[in-house]
Amino acid sequence: MKYSKLFGKTSKTISKDATMVSHKLLLQAGYIAESVAGRYFILPLGMRVQDKIMEIIEEEMDRAGAQKMISPILHPLELWKETNRTNTTGFELMKVKDRRGAEFALGGTAEEMFVDVFRKYNMSYKDLPCNIYQFSTKFRDEMRARGGLLRVREFVMKDAYSFDRDEESFKLEYQKMAETYTRIFERMGLKTTMVLADNGYIGGEYCHEFVVDSEIGESTYFVTEDGSYAAHEEVAEFALEDINVDEEMKPLQVIDAVRGTTMEDGVKLHGLPMHMQIKDVMYKDDKGRYILAVLRGDLDVNEVKLSHLTGSITLEHASEEDIRTLLKSEPGFISPVGMKENMDSSVELLIVADRSLRTIKNAYGGANALNKDSLNVNIDRDYKADLEGDIAFAREGFKSISGSKLIARKGIEVGNIFQLGYHYSNLMKNAEFVDVDGKKKKYYMGCYGIGIGRTMAAVVEIMSDEKGIVWPIGISPYHVHLITLGSQDAVSKSDALYNNLIENGVEVLWDEREDVSAGAKFADADLIGIPIRIVVSDRSLEKGGYEFKERNSDTAEIVNEGDILGKVMGVVNKSL
Amino acid sequence: MKYSKLFGKTSKTISKDATMVSHKLLLQAGYIAESVAGRYFILPLGMRVQDKIMEIIEEEMDRAGAQKMISPILHPLELWKETNRTNTTGFELMKVKDRRGAEFALGGTAEEMFVDVFRKYNMSYKDLPCNIYQFSTKFRDEMRARGGLLRVREFVMKDAYSFDRDEESFKLEYQKMAETYTRIFERMGLKTTMVLADNGYIGGEYCHEFVVDSEIGESTYFVTEDGSYAAHEEVAEFALEDINVDEEMKPLQVIDAVRGTTMEDGVKLHGLPMHMQIKDVMYKDDKGRYILAVLRGDLDVNEVKLSHLTGSITLEHASEEDIRTLLKSEPGFISPVGMKENMDSSVELLIVADRSLRTIKNAYGGANALNKDSLNVNIDRDYKADLEGDIAFAREGFKSISGSKLIARKGIEVGNIFQLGYHYSNLMKNAEFVDVDGKKKKYYMGCYGIGIGRTMAAVVEIMSDEKGIVWPIGISPYHVHLITLGSQDAVSKSDALYNNLIENGVEVLWDEREDVSAGAKFADADLIGIPIRIVVSDRSLEKGGYEFKERNSDTAEIVNEGDILGKVMGVVNKSL
Repeated sequence: MKYSKLFGKTSKTISKDATMVSHKLLLQAGYIAESVAGRYFILPLGMRVQDKIMEIIEEEMDRAGAQKMISPILHPLELWKETNRTNTTGFELMKVKDRRGAEFALGGTAEEMFVDVFRKYNMSYKDLPCNIYQFSTKFRDEMRARGGLLRVREFVMKDAYSFDRDEESFKLEYQKMAETYTRIFERMGLKTTMVLADNGYIGGEYCHEFVVDSEIGESTYFVTEDGSYAAHEEVAEFALEDINVDEEMKPLQVIDAVRGTTMEDGVKLHGLPMHMQIKDVMYKDDKGRYILAVLRGDLDVNEVKLSHLTGSITLEHASEEDIRTLLKSEPGFISPVGMKENMDSSVELLIVADRSLRTIKNAYGGANALNKDSLNVNIDRDYKADLEGDIAFAREGFKSISGSKLIARKGIEVGNIFQLGYHYSNLMKNAEFVDVDGKKKKYYMGCYGIGIGRTMAAVVEIMSDEKGIVWPIGISPYHVHLITLGSQDAVSKSDALYNNLIENGVEVLWDEREDVSAGAKFADADLIGIPIRIVVSDRSLEKGGYEFKERNSDTAEIVNEGDILGKVMGVVNKSL
Repeated sequence: MKYSKLFGKTSKTISKDATMVSHKLLLQAGYIAESVAGRYFILPLGMRVQDKIMEIIEEEMDRAGAQKMISPILHPLELWKETNRTNTTGFELMKVKDRRGAEFALGGTAEEMFVDVFRKYNMSYKDLPCNIYQFSTKFRDEMRARGGLLRVREFVMKDAYSFDRDEESFKLEYQKMAETYTRIFERMGLKTTMVLADNGYIGGEYCHEFVVDSEIGESTYFVTEDGSYAAHEEVAEFALEDINVDEEMKPLQVIDAVRGTTMEDGVKLHGLPMHMQIKDVMYKDDKGRYILAVLRGDLDVNEVKLSHLTGSITLEHASEEDIRTLLKSEPGFISPVGMKENMDSSVELLIVADRSLRTIKNAYGGANALNKDSLNVNIDRDYKADLEGDIAFAREGFKSISGSKLIARKGIEVGNIFQLGYHYSNLMKNAEFVDVDGKKKKYYMGCYGIGIGRTMAAVVEIMSDEKGIVWPIGISPYHVHLITLGSQDAVSKSDALYNNLIENGVEVLWDEREDVSAGAKFADADLIGIPIRIVVSDRSLEKGGYEFKERNSDTAEIVNEGDILGKVMGVVNKSL
């Protein structure tokens, strides 16, 4: 490809909204262009990267025995109604009506569609396991879209859906996909960590994110020092140590406590440690229930864990007014003690206690009235929990269940794999196959996603320097960036080299522009980030050949005409 | 691929709506599955065909110097407002609003998007010509979707957009695309005719359809006997011969004419030939104007030609009531003579005369009153036309402008190429580049489309027999359909052959099912339509090898183990 003819050249002036490295570099180097916020054109250079990423994914999915097909982008809305997802998805679903009045969802994820096509066939155990994947455009009606390809409203996703006879067979598939994902990202130069994560709006019981470590990442996760456990902060488990459980219970006391409403105010007033204070957070859920989360003062409520325990779809903080008028308490002085006895009879309240409350005795906290605190509060004796479990966030330095210390990391999620179990086959009629015993049985399912643009952006975040992108050879738009400088001799030598490389299967971007300075051409080459740069100039020809330099190296060398192809092939063949 | 594991097997029971050959066969053979009317899953077998079609298109577009990229599917509606296309497109545009209130069109064609991305860059004459293409999902809110992949509401299209400095340069690109399209379809085994067609909702002045002859086709076109001219019936031109132009004009007469309202009633009553009668058809257009189309009685109104002449976007027949109350005439007795003088003063009327009226003198027709006819009606003397031109349909047997006879043909449109000229760059601001003289100039544009699914269906329509599909090797899902029948020996020989073929780059679908009869396997193979069938059975092994048969041949032969690969490669290498 001649650079003069390439659509989407480098540009100096880009949007001020571009603050992240990948966003800036992909715009500047001419890989993408913004249509409107969160929606991008993938320009010819970016398209080549995207195609290579998709090719790697396709090769590895095929190798794992998955089959490629494609579903319509518009999903009949009745399918989403069948699974109660029209309003409960974690992303806002975009809907559209056709002129005959039929309603559709713009696909954000496609579980329903693939169950629907499976149930159209009389499948038998002999057809299973079956893993189906597609590359298709997905829509997410994000309120905020920023960070270039990292958070968009429309993107191409590889989504796969597996159908198994039972959990045992599914687990093999899940493991195979985990290995496939690791290899896919490796081939793009990305080292990923497989992190246990929240299943979110997809349904099912467990899932894992594939995370690339990066300071700009939106995923915070914990990994143990020994590497045996990695989990997203939303689900990370940790071990708790007892504090004063051997202490005798003292009598409950209510005292005056003229103080502010923060936890720190309580510590200051009573001169007692934070971990002896009880933290109370009042929520209201999608079912109209009030949920009082109670935990040790040094811990924070993890709403994902909490909602899993209560079965709530959404949780929001209760208003101060509701706390006063309905729950007969006082913001900043809430206490589980006696609350159910005093509150308005119309209220449904769930008291949810964190397991940390079992590590302390004689705690202190509010007393459901302004400027009144309780001392020597003890679970079971003074208040009862409707539900009890782990509803707290882990924190760096905490010990994992296995005893190894937790380390906090930030990263970019590039892929995820989900156990769905019977979630969809229970909700959707006839999601069944005929088993070996002749009986109809429900599918045991999983699903597996990779965002293509997000992966491209992650590679750029990880592999770039102050001058620009540093593509790994496997997904670089071209193998060689050929620069011509100077006289007609350099031009005709370049032309011959360009054709020779192409005939040998090398992909070449040739900057043959005549009115651009050497400096500008070098800067463009560094920005675009193709792994091999070859300069053909009067000077290099005087020295007996072509200047060869790898993007990730500081040293250039002169390579003569006879050796240049071999030198190039040595780098190209590094791609897996 | 082992057939037992393939998702999407052959099925006997398919929807009764499937009447067309391609619809039936693609459903039965397991290439596609319907989601809801007009929206299809492309199953793994179909996906392989689609991928191969796309690969051929990509190779040929690249060879022609076009560059692949992709635009978002959701187009900001303001772009479509810029070109006045929100309501004037020939297909109903689907629209969607996001939760921040931004409006989008679901892309049906992407001229606006590509002009929009071009104008984001400071393009110069050095960047041109530039031809950009994408494979992307398109939406058409068709009222009726039937015929399987031939008329759908959602489909993948290759759409390309060219940007040129001027008309001269554009014409080279248009010619190059014409040749590229011919080659693309040839590689899929399709012989296409390039047919002049109506530009429709795309804008611009001329365009051509690539049509594959087929009785089920929706496109009717005319081609001259000498093949020098081919045009869609909507635009086909033809030569007219004079009938009685040398006759003297006789005095206009109005006489009683108690008759029905058809043209035949006029012929019967007056005993005069049909071609001497004047045909009058009253329309109302989108601007509220009444349009009276007047032509020779033996011809029919061509509404596409008429609307081009009048500049109307839509034309509908005027109601009988309007004809009576506003135009003061009578259905079945309309006449251009005196109409403007008598009609309601609020009415805007355009009288449009077909050029055929210049081939007759002393015509007869209605007289704007029930049971009254006029005799000896002559244009210019008795009525004046506001517009005059060709507004009639050609017909088989008519002579073309060059004198060669027109032959009518039916066909399936698989691609089209459009001259857009300055249509979009005039309507959209800053659709400009800097020319060699330093001045800003508007782009001269063209666009070029191929529907992928429609092409797949066209191939099946043309290449199939009573047993099933007969794929050309270039786009067949697999090269070889391997069937195993019988004992363990046949199974292990098949296994070895399967692996040997795959190692040599041959794509094999292996029917290794154990509980299926030979007859059913043969029927499935014929239905699926892979070019080469190899049977490994106890009987073939007794005869010393494998049974080799091509799908488009009736004869099978036994080929021994040593020769089978060469035999297969001979067929595979036929693909262009």
